[in-house]
Amino acid sequence: MRQAGRYLPEYREIRKLHTFLEMCHTPEVVAEVTLQPVRRFDLDAAIVFSDILVFLPALGLPVEFPEGGPKVSRPIGAPEDVERLGSLDPGRHIPEIYDAVSLCVERLDGSHPLFGFCGAPFTLACYAIEGQGSKEFARARAFLLRHERAGHQLLDKLAESAAAHLVAQVKAGATAVQVFDTWAGLLGRRDFDEFSRPYLERIVTAVKPLGVPVFVFARGVPAAWQAGLGAHVHSLDWRADLAESRRVLAPAGLQGNLDPVLLASSKLRAVATATAMCEEMRDTQAYVFNLGHGVLPETPVENVAAVIDAVHAVKLARRAA
Amino acid sequence: MRQAGRYLPEYREIRKLHTFLEMCHTPEVVAEVTLQPVRRFDLDAAIVFSDILVFLPALGLPVEFPEGGPKVSRPIGAPEDVERLGSLDPGRHIPEIYDAVSLCVERLDGSHPLFGFCGAPFTLACYAIEGQGSKEFARARAFLLRHERAGHQLLDKLAESAAAHLVAQVKAGATAVQVFDTWAGLLGRRDFDEFSRPYLERIVTAVKPLGVPVFVFARGVPAAWQAGLGAHVHSLDWRADLAESRRVLAPAGLQGNLDPVLLASSKLRAVATATAMCEEMRDTQAYVFNLGHGVLPETPVENVAAVIDAVHAVKLARRAA
Repeated sequence: MRQAGRYLPEYREIRKLHTFLEMCHTPEVVAEVTLQPVRRFDLDAAIVFSDILVFLPALGLPVEFPEGGPKVSRPIGAPEDVERLGSLDPGRHIPEIYDAVSLCVERLDGSHPLFGFCGAPFTLACYAIEGQGSKEFARARAFLLRHERAGHQLLDKLAESAAAHLVAQVKAGATAVQVFDTWAGLLGRRDFDEFSRPYLERIVTAVKPLGVPVFVFARGVPAAWQAGLGAHVHSLDWRADLAESRRVLAPAGLQGNLDPVLLASSKLRAVATATAMCEEMRDTQAYVFNLGHGVLPETPVENVAAVIDAVHAVKLARRAA
Repeated sequence: MRQAGRYLPEYREIRKLHTFLEMCHTPEVVAEVTLQPVRRFDLDAAIVFSDILVFLPALGLPVEFPEGGPKVSRPIGAPEDVERLGSLDPGRHIPEIYDAVSLCVERLDGSHPLFGFCGAPFTLACYAIEGQGSKEFARARAFLLRHERAGHQLLDKLAESAAAHLVAQVKAGATAVQVFDTWAGLLGRRDFDEFSRPYLERIVTAVKPLGVPVFVFARGVPAAWQAGLGAHVHSLDWRADLAESRRVLAPAGLQGNLDPVLLASSKLRAVATATAMCEEMRDTQAYVFNLGHGVLPETPVENVAAVIDAVHAVKLARRAA
């Protein structure tokens, strides 16, 4: 999940000097912000600082990031609007994004693997149609149900561009990737199988030949529905039951899923829960401890440090045993 | 789920003349609005027009309903705030609410059963602490995790009042009841078991001796976690898989779960899906067709009518077979 962010004072310092978009498009800033969490904490990997919507402008969907969250200024309103969308040519449209990835790799200098990431087509379509964040993305889901053909054409174009974006990040040096389907949990099973799953599979298939581990985060989607997607690792939000997910998703690995609200609200309880999670997953080969979503801005830095220490302590105790 | 609402022109006419709260507290208006859907459509039951927050003011938590959704004007901010909360004395605090239930029963004159309902303690606590709607109710969940004792004290008081509210509705003539845990789906398993489940159980236990069917709608909570709650029927939101839910919740009945976005966006697809759902559940004794949440304001009335007709057609075809 995103590591850098407003909970870090050193991030807030840089954030004061730039707009969010400026940050994403300036390699020097991306590298600095990406490295902040790995400098401060004993983390096992870094994740590039960026945003899932960063390539939408290249398709003809300009995006801004005012205070209340992202806004797509000319969202998809009618089936015809899908026709006018272009596709991403990574090196031509947003070379600075991949330069930023390369700079992160250079600065990390082999100390940590680096995750690249992209948004999943369904989640990108949510923003492309709704034009902004929403509790239930009812307009976006209605568009897909009402305009089946245009809906699939849109998902298709987004899948092609998202895959190209991910491949370009790997070529720039990213050593692992994650696909974020943040809003797939709004879908019932039929709709997940129609509007999300095939497009996730397409991205996984496009990236796997590059030989990097592929993580999929289908937030709020029951683990059983995700089985067979082809991902190496499934990231789980805080509502998923780890043991049950392991049962249905093995041999794929699992990542997650401490509740970010717990991390923000109680150091003691967060440490206890993180320790219990690691113990529960001790016999699972591929388990990556993480949060179940991004770090909340109000999270005390000391809570983050305490949980990371607790996770490493379990690991050390196990080696010693 | 709620049947009356802004998708009905006859509802919008009445809504123009009153505030939302006035409507809830005026028996004549409640009865009129409650009967609107059963007059217009071939429905098998009515549900009283009200709101889950309607008794919070009696506890010392004033509520208003401006355009953007409910606001609690002095939300719980500190553990001490829980101490000052009173408890609901139904007949003394809000007699008009139960008069409204009786008037609905009188007007229905035996033609339809009438559902009463209440909010579940966890969901009521979300509003009592957060003060308004929220995407993730992070403040409310943090309060419960941080102030364990005060949190449980709050849930306790809300459970006591919610149960009294439901019992009073049954005594006023409601012939079935539903408990709405609209936000329980935000909780991981440990937190659901700590902050939601025991309080749902308490309400179910309090109402069951009255001999009416008890429905529980724990929105977004995996069916397996709900097993053993004691409800006669579990209502499912549109993301739940019917067949899987039946497997883990039997012998309890199921209600739901057509996607309200589908109902609003495509008559053809909604009718096809509703028919498929009824066919899938044909061998289930206690299956109540319904939506997976309330009717969206933009829903065409003809879509609602078409889906209701389709459901009755399946029933008739089965009887004839």
